[in-house]
Amino acid sequence: MSQSFGDWMAASLARVEHALESALPAADTHPAALHEAMRYAALGAGKRVRPLLVMAAGESVGAPGQALEAAGCAVELIHCYSLVHDDLPCMDDDVLRRGRPTVHVVWGEALAMLVGDALQARAFEVLGGIDLPATARMVAELAAAAGSTGMAGGQAIDLAAVGGPMAQAALEGMHRRKTGALLRASVRLGAMAAGPAAWQAAQPALDVYADAIGLAFQVVDDILDVEGDAATLGKTAGKDADQEKPTYVSVLGLDESKRMAASLHDAARAALEPLGAAGTRLRELADLIVLRRS
Amino acid sequence: MSQSFGDWMAASLARVEHALESALPAADTHPAALHEAMRYAALGAGKRVRPLLVMAAGESVGAPGQALEAAGCAVELIHCYSLVHDDLPCMDDDVLRRGRPTVHVVWGEALAMLVGDALQARAFEVLGGIDLPATARMVAELAAAAGSTGMAGGQAIDLAAVGGPMAQAALEGMHRRKTGALLRASVRLGAMAAGPAAWQAAQPALDVYADAIGLAFQVVDDILDVEGDAATLGKTAGKDADQEKPTYVSVLGLDESKRMAASLHDAARAALEPLGAAGTRLRELADLIVLRRS
Repeated sequence: MSQSFGDWMAASLARVEHALESALPAADTHPAALHEAMRYAALGAGKRVRPLLVMAAGESVGAPGQALEAAGCAVELIHCYSLVHDDLPCMDDDVLRRGRPTVHVVWGEALAMLVGDALQARAFEVLGGIDLPATARMVAELAAAAGSTGMAGGQAIDLAAVGGPMAQAALEGMHRRKTGALLRASVRLGAMAAGPAAWQAAQPALDVYADAIGLAFQVVDDILDVEGDAATLGKTAGKDADQEKPTYVSVLGLDESKRMAASLHDAARAALEPLGAAGTRLRELADLIVLRRS
Repeated sequence: MSQSFGDWMAASLARVEHALESALPAADTHPAALHEAMRYAALGAGKRVRPLLVMAAGESVGAPGQALEAAGCAVELIHCYSLVHDDLPCMDDDVLRRGRPTVHVVWGEALAMLVGDALQARAFEVLGGIDLPATARMVAELAAAAGSTGMAGGQAIDLAAVGGPMAQAALEGMHRRKTGALLRASVRLGAMAAGPAAWQAAQPALDVYADAIGLAFQVVDDILDVEGDAATLGKTAGKDADQEKPTYVSVLGLDESKRMAASLHDAARAALEPLGAAGTRLRELADLIVLRRS
């Protein structure tokens, strides 16, 4: 690795932003309000954790760069659609996201719903446009991660859980779907783009890595919701507790949650050992996910 | 064609229902409320016009049956998701669909939104699971038809148009997206499954056919909204007029709308002439779409 992590991050983020920018119709494309709102929801903010995972996983097994940009863009579009729908009054009723008013606050509920619907469709249009033998399987992988046994399923469990108690196993089951499935799909899509042989060789290590960072991501989110402040987070802090949502902190306590995050961090790093130097970026991303302040 | 249209319809509908039934997780799959509601939204009702178009178009150019069942199922899942979202209080606020209470009436707004989101994801999972070289392009085709320049875009235009006047050209532009895009994609997906050579040969005729029946479908819908009754339609009649939505009947009047439907019917039949006997099912479906009473 001659390139520093910082330089790789900057270059990769620029590629992701460019891919997202190109993937969305111009803001004056008819119907303009919809396209303007889609661009607002997807561009100019966001940590881009998922596309970075796609690129790092893909580069660790030699996948072609253009396919990784498209796959990373597709995963991020799914993530962005889920945020728009999550923020709606019938869901979390959030008015602030990434430091800006949420889509439904600016454009109303009905258009916000269509923004999410159209972003999801666009994700699959971008992914389907990748010219690789593995494309169809990548589509099925992302769709499964986004659907009723993945992200949308996790949100349905979350919905049913508000105000009630939840055991740690149930909480993990919810988060494996709600955030874990898409993070795992990000790692998988990157590696799948390298072709079946490279993917099958790397899959056991990458799945363990992805599951560990997937849970760590959520545990850290819950810790930050307690310890962070709205200015750094770009969203309302303390919101989960206010809404009586079960979190790792409410179930395990703050100290035990921090121990869990550290242990998952170790597990993610250990999983990458078979990859040697090729796993460097994925290791650095695990550090970023666990040690982030927002 | 040794088989009668009625027999073909019955056999094709049975194949579609079976594909839909298999495509959706069992109602007790965790999270059960989501899966129960997804099955309610997609199974046991619906005219299945889109999957029938997929199968008729595919069979006209010799596409493999299993791929047509999966593609038809995918298109119908997209259609079903759009109905669930369309019925939400922030959109059309409809309480009756296909003669039954709408999803949000039974399960609430938040879960209804997730049902739509998850049905869209499932559509692409099913489509991505087709084992054909054309699969990736079929995914991109369906996604484009569902997205911001297709169905979701048409709904955004519809949203902005309520209560305002609309010229015939603008009304057509809206319906080409809102209903036309998915009907066109149905015809295209069927033919694409036959491979690039068969698809390219048939495309000019099929696109003209699809555009004609796409518009005809909407004109007939608007006529039925005025002339039909709730019992036959399975939804509230006269609703468009009540909501001051622009319709072909409100823009052109009832007689001119009927002339337009007849003329589009003729155009659809004429477009199929190059296909000869292979176009029989598509011709019969055009008849069904224009002459239906609900």
